[in-house]
Amino acid sequence: MLEAIGQRAKQAEPVLRTLHTETKNQALRQVAEDLVKRQEEILAANEIDMKAGRESGMSEGLLDRLSLTSDRIAAMAQGLCHVADLDDPIGEIAVMKERPSGLLIGQKRVPLGVVGIIYEARPNVTSDAFGLCFKAGNVVILKGGSSAIHSNKAIVSCIRNSLSKCRITADAIQFIEDPSREVTAEFMKMNKYVDVLIPRGGAGLIQAVVNNSTVPVIETGTGNCHIFVDESADLEMAAAIVINAKTQRVGVCNACESLLVHEKLKNDFLPVLAESLKEKHVLIHGDPQVQELIPDAVAATEEDWGKEYLDYEISIKVVDSLEEAIEHINRYNTKHSESIVTNRYDHAQQFLNEVDAAAVYVNASTRFTDGEEFGYGAEIGISTQKLHVRGPMGLQALTTTKYVIYGNGQIRL
Amino acid sequence: MLEAIGQRAKQAEPVLRTLHTETKNQALRQVAEDLVKRQEEILAANEIDMKAGRESGMSEGLLDRLSLTSDRIAAMAQGLCHVADLDDPIGEIAVMKERPSGLLIGQKRVPLGVVGIIYEARPNVTSDAFGLCFKAGNVVILKGGSSAIHSNKAIVSCIRNSLSKCRITADAIQFIEDPSREVTAEFMKMNKYVDVLIPRGGAGLIQAVVNNSTVPVIETGTGNCHIFVDESADLEMAAAIVINAKTQRVGVCNACESLLVHEKLKNDFLPVLAESLKEKHVLIHGDPQVQELIPDAVAATEEDWGKEYLDYEISIKVVDSLEEAIEHINRYNTKHSESIVTNRYDHAQQFLNEVDAAAVYVNASTRFTDGEEFGYGAEIGISTQKLHVRGPMGLQALTTTKYVIYGNGQIRL
Repeated sequence: MLEAIGQRAKQAEPVLRTLHTETKNQALRQVAEDLVKRQEEILAANEIDMKAGRESGMSEGLLDRLSLTSDRIAAMAQGLCHVADLDDPIGEIAVMKERPSGLLIGQKRVPLGVVGIIYEARPNVTSDAFGLCFKAGNVVILKGGSSAIHSNKAIVSCIRNSLSKCRITADAIQFIEDPSREVTAEFMKMNKYVDVLIPRGGAGLIQAVVNNSTVPVIETGTGNCHIFVDESADLEMAAAIVINAKTQRVGVCNACESLLVHEKLKNDFLPVLAESLKEKHVLIHGDPQVQELIPDAVAATEEDWGKEYLDYEISIKVVDSLEEAIEHINRYNTKHSESIVTNRYDHAQQFLNEVDAAAVYVNASTRFTDGEEFGYGAEIGISTQKLHVRGPMGLQALTTTKYVIYGNGQIRL
Repeated sequence: MLEAIGQRAKQAEPVLRTLHTETKNQALRQVAEDLVKRQEEILAANEIDMKAGRESGMSEGLLDRLSLTSDRIAAMAQGLCHVADLDDPIGEIAVMKERPSGLLIGQKRVPLGVVGIIYEARPNVTSDAFGLCFKAGNVVILKGGSSAIHSNKAIVSCIRNSLSKCRITADAIQFIEDPSREVTAEFMKMNKYVDVLIPRGGAGLIQAVVNNSTVPVIETGTGNCHIFVDESADLEMAAAIVINAKTQRVGVCNACESLLVHEKLKNDFLPVLAESLKEKHVLIHGDPQVQELIPDAVAATEEDWGKEYLDYEISIKVVDSLEEAIEHINRYNTKHSESIVTNRYDHAQQFLNEVDAAAVYVNASTRFTDGEEFGYGAEIGISTQKLHVRGPMGLQALTTTKYVIYGNGQIRL
C-alpha cells in the first residue's frame, strides 16, 4: 500500500516541480472555494470522529482540537487563499557567478520533492500542510492521527477533487489511511520516495519520528522557553513580558515555561509578580529563595528546570549573574526561544551572542516566535534543529536549491 | 567513554562559538606549522598502519589512500593555511527587518555546534575536517577507520597540542579511538551531544550512517553521474566532455558513470567515441543498439544503469528523445551531477529545469562539481541530499542561523 503511494508520489513529483505560479494559485483558490462548498460533508465526517472521541473519553482539550465548525472550515479556506497570495519561492536564482573556468554557476530555488507530514488530532493541519507544500511545488503525503481519520479523509477527498477540476494530478496530495504502528514505522523508512519528514504534534510524536526515521527529519516544536530578568530590568516591563509569555496562550511551544530572576531584584520583583501570576492561576515551582518570597510556591525539582508545562505552571529560579542565567538556559532549554529583560547594553549583546536557541530576544515576549510575526505569512512549524532551517518555517523551508551551470565545452584539467 | 567525549565537546562548544576570527586563523596557522615540524612522529605512526595494512593484504588503492609522505603532510598544512585565509562566515546578519510589532528581527550566522565526522582510511581527512569545522566555530568529534588509527591519533595529538599552545581548549577536536561497531552505533545516537553527522567514504559507510543514525545526517557523495549527448550536440565537444568526465579521474563521485546518446547521431558518434574510450581502456556496458555499433561492448544489465563504477567502466544507452533521457536520469541517478551536450536553447533549458540533481550542466564536464571550482575555497564533501545544503559544501554548510530580536517591551496581543 505504502509502496503504491510512494510510486504515485514520485510520478507526481516532476509535474508539481514545474507547475506555473498562477496555476498553483488558481488551484489553491479552487480548493478553498470547494472546502466551503462541501462543508456539510466534512462536518458530517468530523461528527463521526467527535462521537468516537467522546465515547472513548477523549479530554475536552483534545476534543476541541479535533472539532471542526463552519467557522473553522472558513478559516482553513482563508488560509489557503492567503498562501495563494504569498510570493512563489520557486525558480529564483539569487546570484549567478562566472568562475575562472568560464562556467556560469547559479543556485536555483527548487521544491524539496516529496514531503511527509506526521501529525495528530487537528484536522486543519491537513489543508494547511497541503497548501504550503503545494505552493512550494512539493507532493505531500499525510499521515494524520487515527482519531481524526474521517475528517481528514473528507478534507483530502475534497482537495483531490478540486485538483482534478484544475487538471492537476490529484496525487499531489495523498493520505495514509492505515493507522497501524507498522505502517507508520514503514513510512519513516521510505527514503526511496520521501525527501523529508516533518512531525507536527507533541514531544512524544516528535521523539518517535526522530528516533525511528531514516528519512531526513525536520524536528519541530517543543519549547522550554526562558525569560531572564536582569539586574537592570525595568520591573514593570519585565512583569508585563512574563505574564504575556506565560499566560497569553499556555498550550503553545513559544510560551514561557521558566523564569530566571537576578538576585539583586528578587525582593522588589518576585512578590509583585507572584500576585499577577496568582490572578491568572499560575502554579509556581520555585527554588528555596523563591519559596521564601512566595509562600504559595511549591519546591522546584531538577525535572522542573527541563519541563515544558504547556499549562498554567512556571518554574522560577534566582541567579547571581548573567553568566549563571546563560549557563542555566543553555543547559535546560530546547533551543526554541529565550528572552532577556535588561537595560544594560553589554548584557543584551552578551545574551544574544551566547544563548543557543532558534530565537533570542531582548525586551520582548517569547510569544513572537511565529511565522506570521516574523514576516513569512504562514508557517508549517517551528524548527528546533540546526540543519536546514531554524525557527519559524515559511515556504522557503519547504524548498532546496540546485546548481544550474552554463558552459561552452569546459573540461577539467 | 563516548559520554565523556560528548560532555567535553559540549563544554568546549560555547568557547568555540565565540572565538574571534583572528584567534581562529592564528590557531590554524599554528597547527599547520606544527604538523610539518612534527612530521617524523606522524610518519612513524603512519608506517605502523601501513605495515599492518600490507600484512593484512590491503589493496594497492587503499594503501595509497592510507599512505602519508612529507609532501602529503605539507599539503595538509597548506590546506589549513588556505582555510585560515577564507572569510569567516560566522556573525553575519545579512538583513535586519523592522516588523509591524516594532521588533527588529535579523538572522545571524552561527556555528552548528558539535559536528561528528565518520570516515575511512584517508588520514588527511583528520586535519581537513578539523580545519573547516574549527574555522566555522564548531567542535569536531572524529571517528576514523581502524586501519588509520595510529596516523589519526598522531595527527590529532599534534593538533590538540597546537591548540593548547594558542590557549584554546584542546577539546575543540576529539577522536574516538575504539574502532568497535558498538561504539560507532552509539556515536550515531548521541543526539544529546552531536548536532550533525557527516559520513565521508564509500556507499556502504554512508548507507550505514543514514540507516542507523538518529543524529541529523548530511548525506555525501555517491555519484552515478550522466552525460546526455543531444541530437544537436557538437560531436567533438561531446567526445571531449565524455572522455574528461569518465577518465580524468575515475575514483571520484563527480566522474561520469553513464552516457545517453540520441538515436539520430549514434552512428556518427558512438564508433568514434568508442575508439577514444578504448585508448583509455574503458570497458563499455551497452544496450543492444550500442552493442551493434561497438563490438567490444558487453551487454548492460538493469543493474548497470544504477551503478557507480568508480573505475574504467561506463554504461551507454541510446535514447529517442530528450524526454526519454530526462526520465532515465531521474530514475537512475543519485542526484549528484548531470550534464547535457546540446546546441539547442530549448533543450538546454528543459534539461536544467527537469533533471533533479545537485548540479545540472549544459556543455561541460561533470567533474567541475567541487568546492574549489564552485568558489568555496575548500569543501567538506558533496551533499546529495536536499535538506540544509546541496552540492559542494564549503564553510557555510557547517553553520546555521539564529534569530536575534531587539525589542522595547513588546508583548503579543
